[in-house]
Amino acid sequence: MPNDFTLSCPPPFTPRKTVVLGHGSGGKLSAQLIREIFLPAFDNPWLRKLDDQAVISIDGGRIAFTTDAFVVTPLFFPGGDIGELAVNGTVNDLAMSGARPVCLSAAFILEEGFPLEDLARVTQSMARAAAAAGVAIATGDTKVVNKGSADRMFVTTAGIGVVPEGVEISASNARPGDRVLLSGTIGDHGMAVMSRREGLEFDGAILSDTAPLDRLVEAMLAAGEIHALRDPTRGGLGTSLCEMAAASKVGVEIDARLIPVREEVRAACELLGLDPLFVANEGKLVSFVRAEDAGAVLAAMRQRPEGREAAIIGEAVAAHPGMVLMKTEIGGTRVVDLPFGEQLPRIC
Amino acid sequence: MPNDFTLSCPPPFTPRKTVVLGHGSGGKLSAQLIREIFLPAFDNPWLRKLDDQAVISIDGGRIAFTTDAFVVTPLFFPGGDIGELAVNGTVNDLAMSGARPVCLSAAFILEEGFPLEDLARVTQSMARAAAAAGVAIATGDTKVVNKGSADRMFVTTAGIGVVPEGVEISASNARPGDRVLLSGTIGDHGMAVMSRREGLEFDGAILSDTAPLDRLVEAMLAAGEIHALRDPTRGGLGTSLCEMAAASKVGVEIDARLIPVREEVRAACELLGLDPLFVANEGKLVSFVRAEDAGAVLAAMRQRPEGREAAIIGEAVAAHPGMVLMKTEIGGTRVVDLPFGEQLPRIC
Repeated sequence: MPNDFTLSCPPPFTPRKTVVLGHGSGGKLSAQLIREIFLPAFDNPWLRKLDDQAVISIDGGRIAFTTDAFVVTPLFFPGGDIGELAVNGTVNDLAMSGARPVCLSAAFILEEGFPLEDLARVTQSMARAAAAAGVAIATGDTKVVNKGSADRMFVTTAGIGVVPEGVEISASNARPGDRVLLSGTIGDHGMAVMSRREGLEFDGAILSDTAPLDRLVEAMLAAGEIHALRDPTRGGLGTSLCEMAAASKVGVEIDARLIPVREEVRAACELLGLDPLFVANEGKLVSFVRAEDAGAVLAAMRQRPEGREAAIIGEAVAAHPGMVLMKTEIGGTRVVDLPFGEQLPRIC
Repeated sequence: MPNDFTLSCPPPFTPRKTVVLGHGSGGKLSAQLIREIFLPAFDNPWLRKLDDQAVISIDGGRIAFTTDAFVVTPLFFPGGDIGELAVNGTVNDLAMSGARPVCLSAAFILEEGFPLEDLARVTQSMARAAAAAGVAIATGDTKVVNKGSADRMFVTTAGIGVVPEGVEISASNARPGDRVLLSGTIGDHGMAVMSRREGLEFDGAILSDTAPLDRLVEAMLAAGEIHALRDPTRGGLGTSLCEMAAASKVGVEIDARLIPVREEVRAACELLGLDPLFVANEGKLVSFVRAEDAGAVLAAMRQRPEGREAAIIGEAVAAHPGMVLMKTEIGGTRVVDLPFGEQLPRIC
């Protein structure tokens, strides 16, 4: 796996001695941290898969298990808040293995002086999101640190789900010929947070897409054979495709003209010099689907509100394994590569 | 359950508008936060039990699920570090349901500028602790926040384990007549951290007791009928006993002279004006055991290194349900009540 990463992302790393924002970006520096620090220390078959969740065989069944820390700023943004994000993010990481999410844990780190009213607002938002996804927040923990030792509130959720029999989904299972399906527009979450943070005039016009995707996955599984699934959160669609291409040792060819992007999001990205391909989403998925099932799966996706704008954006190929190529708007071809570091810090 | 808390801890609460350090203490303010914010929002049967883990029926089996955030300062202290604590703490919360721990997740929140060398040291320490407890760190996440937005490093672990058939352990299952068994000396972890933090002359003489307790619990289960188990971490033995008495609606009577406390710990507590009964432990458990099995369970505990100093320190009674009484060193009797707020902030 480390070699595949090296293949798709030649590492021009200067040796670093301290953590930089880019280590949390989901890009090359994140991959380096995983490869050089976490994998050697924790080495085991689950972690080595580099999926966003572990699937563990217990008592004859299979349990999906995942965690994410949320440090988004601001805590409340157009279309959502840190609580909704923390629930949907973990529900979605479970769903990306094909699992039915069962329950979540929630651990809060609070800064002394944080308004209890905001804590109540976040927990109520988590409760609504959990109810919408059909999961319980079954266990939790709260720690308080002195003023100045944390920025208001961090929320870490973990979750467990049940993987149905016969389902074998992993970022490493894409095969040449598979069609690449995207569930809707990209960049909404990242630009909603950024426009609030930067006080742009788009503020309020762009809403985060935060949403649970477990029922969309259920509908897709019923319609055809799904090989790989990922929700393109931090690092965006571009990063997810690079990771899946590397993990599955397939080439990926996509067409920019087929990728839906909202007009406001495109404009905001241009203003800030960002590429929507690398901007975070919190209610979208990208999937590698067996070619003959692609039409049926697409139709099933479009019948659900969270997949209404789904599109086939490309395919997996045997050529250039680990590399993602994109036909651009003007008909050229570019290599899609992992961003080096941080495009948008603290976006989730 | 909220009413039981009210019973054992008459709430002289002034209305608060912001989070204070005491909300993370494990004492009355923590209980208030759970009762007034988390329970109403997340209400479900698992959370309502107020155990340190949820036990969930999946596919005919039972899975224990738990989480804890770790914000201890300093990160490295005599006898351990935040990584070892994060693994053992979650392993122990699983073990307290009688579960065999299977795997953990680890979510890191890092401050920009944190030395990579320290990150490597912590992860290696986590790996050693996981190997010692026989669990895998199967999934994880890393977020980085800008300098000043977090104090170096926070680690949140979650864990899943398998509860063996026939095992029914909960803080609410203690019964009158049960013997109260304690696995060893109290206060070591809290005073190890405090002596380092305060630069006391005890620094280095007192070591944290951080240790996995899953094998001790396994030995206890093989020796007799265990009704309730808890690891007295923040809030200490006193808080755990108050919570178990309230949850089980039993009275508890213990004898201070039977509770082992190291001489150095006692001296350090006196110097800082602390009561060892409320100081954190990270490798101890307290258990309510069926009276006729108490001798056999005690013998089994003493055969393991982490239970060598185990002792029977009292019993559960039908009188004064929810109230813990302690015979003092000088022969008097005192009520053991939940501490109001924070005795030792950021101890775990």
